[in-house]
Amino acid sequence: AEAVVRVSEIFGPTIQGEGALIGLPTVFVRTGGCDYRCSWCDSLHAVDSRYRADWKPMTSGAILDEVRRLSGDRPLTVTISGGNPAIQPLGDLIRQGHERGYRFALETQGSVSQDWFAELDMLVLSPKPPSSGMVTDWQALANCVAEASAGPRTVLKFVVFDEADYAFARDAASRFPALAVYLQPGNPIPEGAEAEHEAVDPDALMRRMEWLIDRVTADRWFEAHVLPQLHVLIWGNRRGV
Amino acid sequence: AEAVVRVSEIFGPTIQGEGALIGLPTVFVRTGGCDYRCSWCDSLHAVDSRYRADWKPMTSGAILDEVRRLSGDRPLTVTISGGNPAIQPLGDLIRQGHERGYRFALETQGSVSQDWFAELDMLVLSPKPPSSGMVTDWQALANCVAEASAGPRTVLKFVVFDEADYAFARDAASRFPALAVYLQPGNPIPEGAEAEHEAVDPDALMRRMEWLIDRVTADRWFEAHVLPQLHVLIWGNRRGV
Ligand code: SF4
Ligand code: SF4
Repeated sequence: AEAVVRVSEIFGPTIQGEGALIGLPTVFVRTGGCDYRCSWCDSLHAVDSRYRADWKPMTSGAILDEVRRLSGDRPLTVTISGGNPAIQPLGDLIRQGHERGYRFALETQGSVSQDWFAELDMLVLSPKPPSSGMVTDWQALANCVAEASAGPRTVLKFVVFDEADYAFARDAASRFPALAVYLQPGNPIPEGAEAEHEAVDPDALMRRMEWLIDRVTADRWFEAHVLPQLHVLIWGNRRGV
Repeated sequence: AEAVVRVSEIFGPTIQGEGALIGLPTVFVRTGGCDYRCSWCDSLHAVDSRYRADWKPMTSGAILDEVRRLSGDRPLTVTISGGNPAIQPLGDLIRQGHERGYRFALETQGSVSQDWFAELDMLVLSPKPPSSGMVTDWQALANCVAEASAGPRTVLKFVVFDEADYAFARDAASRFPALAVYLQPGNPIPEGAEAEHEAVDPDALMRRMEWLIDRVTADRWFEAHVLPQLHVLIWGNRRGV
């Protein structure tokens, strides 16, 4: 029997709004379910079990069909996010997509590793800083890096709300000196899923960018990229765009 | 005698606000003088001969000293822009900087090629679209690509104000299918250097982003990156930041 993936939403093509592939057209596959509960999670509809009924069990073939439909059967980079997509069986999707010329970038917090990480084109490890309320399992993160070592380009991405988050990012990056680093100012949303669609304040986000750039340049951390979430600037916190 | 470079300004470190290195800390070296006069040039202080008295003749050694001072002698990527930096003798600066671990990205419209392009780490060719009022010499651009072929990562960057600019970018990109493409919505400023420091409208810029993203995804141009000028969003059109 083919593996079944719990899918929260599939949408696009639109641009990747953040991180190493910023600006690149992509189709997003967002899986449902997460082993974390970050205080500022902006994807509660793909995390909270209240939304479980919306998560559709799909085979790899059905997911790829939808990706092909959305992209007009023209290969592009598919971004797999969640929730935590690393808890889903995604190896078949990646293999079947590669046969059609599609590429795959996966973003996970790094709490669960899978042997199929090696087949990805990009692995974005996004350990959660103190402001999330979560605690990083460094061994699990190292396992993710190790699983991917023969395959994809692996990068670290950090959401930074405050000095403690920044210190966490510095520490985590120093543990994996070979990986490129992307820092992203946190985008505060009020608690609760209802607030998920609320507008953001672009000025406040830009002041956070400024602070983070000052922080990084003052420390001469010249290997770290500082990038905002473009989709938030363009469309606000609206989902599915 | 050592080659002398006309320098309009050296500043940083701050992040690269656009293109392939977006988000990366960099020191900018802006040279004075340009063989173009784009209608919407946002660097008139490095182009217009009215500002010529501000352009400082500097040796490679003096430029590198200033870059090292600004970066605390910690190697980073130096961005060389202008004006058109390709009309300056920059080979010595690149070689001397490499000895100290610095990397060099150069941005030019592609009207003048130099043998030292091969020594760069990144070459950003930014042919000017119809809205600029300039006409691209395709042979000169091809010469730039050829000079760089053994060396740096070469990418194409296009400012897009309207449909004609977009069509130009499509055509130019199709001439160089091996090069990565970065599209950037135009950032309109009123004519004249006095207006150079005026504020921009972030909402209008984001609506242009949205238009350009729609344009690219409708055409399934999935290899093109669409990115705004972050420095304009963060600091407006202020110079030297
Ligand atoms: S790991 Fe990601 S999806 Fe899971 S709760 Fe945290 S922010 Fe939300
Ligand atoms: S090529 Fe660049 S620096 Fe020269 S006039 Fe055009 S926009 Fe200004």
